[in-house]
Amino acid sequence: MKNFSFYNPTKILFGEGTIKDIAGEIPKELKILVTYGGGSVKRNGVFDEVKEALQGYEMLEFGGIEPNPTYETLMQCVEVVRKNKIDFLLAVGGGSVIDGTKFIVAAVPYEGEPWDIVKTYGKVIKRALPFGTVLTLPATGSEMNNGAVITHKASRTKLPFVHPLLYPRFSILDPTKTYTLPPGQIGNGVVDTFVHVTEQYLTYPANGKVQDRFAEGLLLTLIEEGPKALAEPKNYNVRANLMWCATLGLNGLISVGVPQDWATHMVGHELTALKGLDHAKTLAVVLPVMLDIRRKEKKEKLLQYAQRVWGINTGDDDERIDAAIRKTREFFESMQVPTRLCDYNITADIIPDVIEQLKAHKMILLGEKKDVTPDLIESILKKCL
Amino acid sequence: MKNFSFYNPTKILFGEGTIKDIAGEIPKELKILVTYGGGSVKRNGVFDEVKEALQGYEMLEFGGIEPNPTYETLMQCVEVVRKNKIDFLLAVGGGSVIDGTKFIVAAVPYEGEPWDIVKTYGKVIKRALPFGTVLTLPATGSEMNNGAVITHKASRTKLPFVHPLLYPRFSILDPTKTYTLPPGQIGNGVVDTFVHVTEQYLTYPANGKVQDRFAEGLLLTLIEEGPKALAEPKNYNVRANLMWCATLGLNGLISVGVPQDWATHMVGHELTALKGLDHAKTLAVVLPVMLDIRRKEKKEKLLQYAQRVWGINTGDDDERIDAAIRKTREFFESMQVPTRLCDYNITADIIPDVIEQLKAHKMILLGEKKDVTPDLIESILKKCL
Repeated sequence: MKNFSFYNPTKILFGEGTIKDIAGEIPKELKILVTYGGGSVKRNGVFDEVKEALQGYEMLEFGGIEPNPTYETLMQCVEVVRKNKIDFLLAVGGGSVIDGTKFIVAAVPYEGEPWDIVKTYGKVIKRALPFGTVLTLPATGSEMNNGAVITHKASRTKLPFVHPLLYPRFSILDPTKTYTLPPGQIGNGVVDTFVHVTEQYLTYPANGKVQDRFAEGLLLTLIEEGPKALAEPKNYNVRANLMWCATLGLNGLISVGVPQDWATHMVGHELTALKGLDHAKTLAVVLPVMLDIRRKEKKEKLLQYAQRVWGINTGDDDERIDAAIRKTREFFESMQVPTRLCDYNITADIIPDVIEQLKAHKMILLGEKKDVTPDLIESILKKCL
Repeated sequence: MKNFSFYNPTKILFGEGTIKDIAGEIPKELKILVTYGGGSVKRNGVFDEVKEALQGYEMLEFGGIEPNPTYETLMQCVEVVRKNKIDFLLAVGGGSVIDGTKFIVAAVPYEGEPWDIVKTYGKVIKRALPFGTVLTLPATGSEMNNGAVITHKASRTKLPFVHPLLYPRFSILDPTKTYTLPPGQIGNGVVDTFVHVTEQYLTYPANGKVQDRFAEGLLLTLIEEGPKALAEPKNYNVRANLMWCATLGLNGLISVGVPQDWATHMVGHELTALKGLDHAKTLAVVLPVMLDIRRKEKKEKLLQYAQRVWGINTGDDDERIDAAIRKTREFFESMQVPTRLCDYNITADIIPDVIEQLKAHKMILLGEKKDVTPDLIESILKKCL
């Protein structure tokens, strides 16, 4: 096991009816800006519930943060925060709203051009406003971590950044607020969480026995509960388990002391930035081929995955790995997330653009062993068509 | 799943050589008191390493905190802290030193009689000094939680207390510092961790799917690594996995949203207070019988435990449960921790005293359903002889 440090001070308030507990988490004298996305939180009553919980506070709102939140939109919000001397932000929505809010809280006190924050992967951050979240779409884990991914529309660039000041002070996780999500977003959320876990688990053995068991526990739960979430949209326990999986899948716990991959994500980000394809859909397309092509480097963990997660105990090594990858693809499809680029009308001509963008973003040696080259990604993408 | 809140701000610095990182975690101007136990940290070099890391700080020391730390000893330290205007405490040792230090940091600013802190299970705490830990004996999980257990020698009382102010600011977990532990303490640590997990897992089904998987992951790791820790005392990865298991076994993560038992611990505390028997040994004695006698109430989880942890797939329900309990007992014995009171020369005449003490401490309805009565405990203890 490698040395590590683990620190995660986000307070989680989990369960039905917990929005009303927000007030206990924010000092009364603070001026709050509530950020949100396309307006579904206004239609489904979540925004009203938040407003009710914040009675007595001075509160403004900023809506319209889009999926794959853009620098361009977020900078408008930065102006609002500066102009109105906001003290605390409350992100109400899914990963995009939370990620966008992380950019805003870091950009407001930043004295240079805020895109520097993204360009330096967060290194230039010195201060950030405090913020909390009300999660409505479990998927990204952003509600309990210190990272975010932002898109620069003009340059078609989608990049991650992290900083210890970007942990939410608190996050409200009420599973009933996911009841009204369309099936497409449930499918995306389950796939996104699944691939977060595999990025931290399907690498090479590092003697992180608990980390492996925890990762497998999350995958097994996703496999068990994911299809139920589509079949029984108001099953509280199913939604609760998926919500808690999504948070634990990317809160830093399962990655301590072990190698991490993230090549699938980096390729996926370029596909989203270039073609607007949903983040989770890019992962569902890329992961199965990524595992197939890198089966030699990932052999031990793929065999462990086959056995412990999918119960595959027969066949030679390659047959077991084939079966595990096939099961993975079938699981994504069962979540109504297609796994081929052609399913999304994306053709081979995108491949050179993806490679070019990866190079432009200095993503030339990816993966847990930094051996995933642009050439390898090209061959992977050809098998994704 | 039940509603819950989860908050754990302790920073973990894990791995070989991390003691030197202490200085980065404590502001230079603070006056530090290092607390420790019987002196093994002085003999094995850990204390010197801590001292080296704290060069430039004003530093005092207080040794002699005993296993099952007593109010009587700790109050001497409270006086030292008050007299010397200490700002920060650093506990160097195992659970007893850390638990004792938690009492000290709460007692120093407390204006009444500090035993109130324990008597009220922590409710009267309003302030506490900050503190960190250097863990040398993985077992209690105290290095990443906000609870402690203190013994009042005069009244033979051992009671737990908790408070949000009692999380360590940081904890150093260096697995190499456990190499010199005697086998008896390794066995105790593994058993203690195992029973922490079962107290939070072997109750009744509550649809906490991830919590169950995580608990099972910890148990499987303990079963896999525990015996290796006795056979190969300097196997770094084995010690690292056990150390991380112990921390995760009681840092609040696996208990969120699910019922908890703790009856075994409460009975064990009385045995320790009355007879001085090691904490883990009391658990190894009581747990197997506790599970046996309460098999009806715990049936579903015991069957799940039998299947997922011990791989028991044959026999009727009672046979599977019998086999799982037998395996549990055998595991404790394999860790060189005997599981009968007679192994420790404790006879039936202790039973009325335990019952009387439990009643005196208002422990009359224990367990996840508050249905474990003194009469039931009497029949359990008779089967522990």
